[in-house]
Amino acid sequence: MTRRSEKIDLPVAKVRRYLEPGPIVLMTSAFGGARNIMTMGWHTVMEFTPSLIGCVIAAGNHSFELVRKSRECVINLPTTALTDEVVGIGNTSGAEVDKFAKFALTPQPARRVAAPLIRECHANFECKLADGALIDKYNFFIFEVVKAHVARTPRHPRTLHYTGDGVFMVAGKIISRRRQFRPALLSE
Amino acid sequence: MTRRSEKIDLPVAKVRRYLEPGPIVLMTSAFGGARNIMTMGWHTVMEFTPSLIGCVIAAGNHSFELVRKSRECVINLPTTALTDEVVGIGNTSGAEVDKFAKFALTPQPARRVAAPLIRECHANFECKLADGALIDKYNFFIFEVVKAHVARTPRHPRTLHYTGDGVFMVAGKIISRRRQFRPALLSE
Repeated sequence: MTRRSEKIDLPVAKVRRYLEPGPIVLMTSAFGGARNIMTMGWHTVMEFTPSLIGCVIAAGNHSFELVRKSRECVINLPTTALTDEVVGIGNTSGAEVDKFAKFALTPQPARRVAAPLIRECHANFECKLADGALIDKYNFFIFEVVKAHVARTPRHPRTLHYTGDGVFMVAGKIISRRRQFRPALLSE
Repeated sequence: MTRRSEKIDLPVAKVRRYLEPGPIVLMTSAFGGARNIMTMGWHTVMEFTPSLIGCVIAAGNHSFELVRKSRECVINLPTTALTDEVVGIGNTSGAEVDKFAKFALTPQPARRVAAPLIRECHANFECKLADGALIDKYNFFIFEVVKAHVARTPRHPRTLHYTGDGVFMVAGKIISRRRQFRPALLSE
């Protein structure tokens, strides 16, 4: 509980701030006594309220069945501090190894789902399956974020953005163009 | 034609390199004598072959009907050189103004679709609607990229990544972890 208190609650309608820029994420899942972590880059925000995220989980991944059967997951946001773990997790199979142990990551209980949070990540988004209509055809899952935990600092985490072939772009500088926006497109 | 020769063809299976990192894109569309440009950030790669991209076009946008009726679009990739244009396009409606004229952008004919390419963008991906099953429920379009044009340089463009509330993250440094990848996950 003390570790979890390092993060604050984020209104789920605001997860776009972290996911829309396209970071690689670590998806955790659990079902029937098994658990896993996978590296994922194919995801998009789909709605603010309800807070919907669409993503592709390739059917060959060990996580696919854990997520499909449990209908839950946690989307964890790593920063460059976890680059080796992101690469290692993406290049091993959960069918053969417990990735929490292998990569020395700390599972923490989630509030609304059975899948664990990864303590070392900047943010954790607890998700429940909202629509599985495109799973069979495209391996595409639509999740509702039901609980969001984020670290207080840094305000803009140095996330990893995959470009294929082993190459990542690291999140760079932040620029604000708030003054040029119509008020209706801004919150707060 | 001379202007178009500045870009080279990219195999459509490789568009993930440009879109997976989560850049803001400019979507162009055309139908019945009308054309438009919209700023879009909610998209994801869904498959390599066929080259599928899923994205959300809010139903209130002028582009929604142009895309839905024409079943085509072009996804154009701007860099920081077009920051003012990206913001301006996202804060005006194509129902009231021709955005090519207003923002001094150059339309170029596409090869496979009626929607125009934007010459000033780093890359242009011509798309045809592959699956419209989730349009009514989520405004979610699944496109197949049928032709891809990219500038030769720079190899890693400085793309814009939106975080909401008028704030963008700019693409930062590039790091390679190729040596830590399983060969099956690398191409070339």
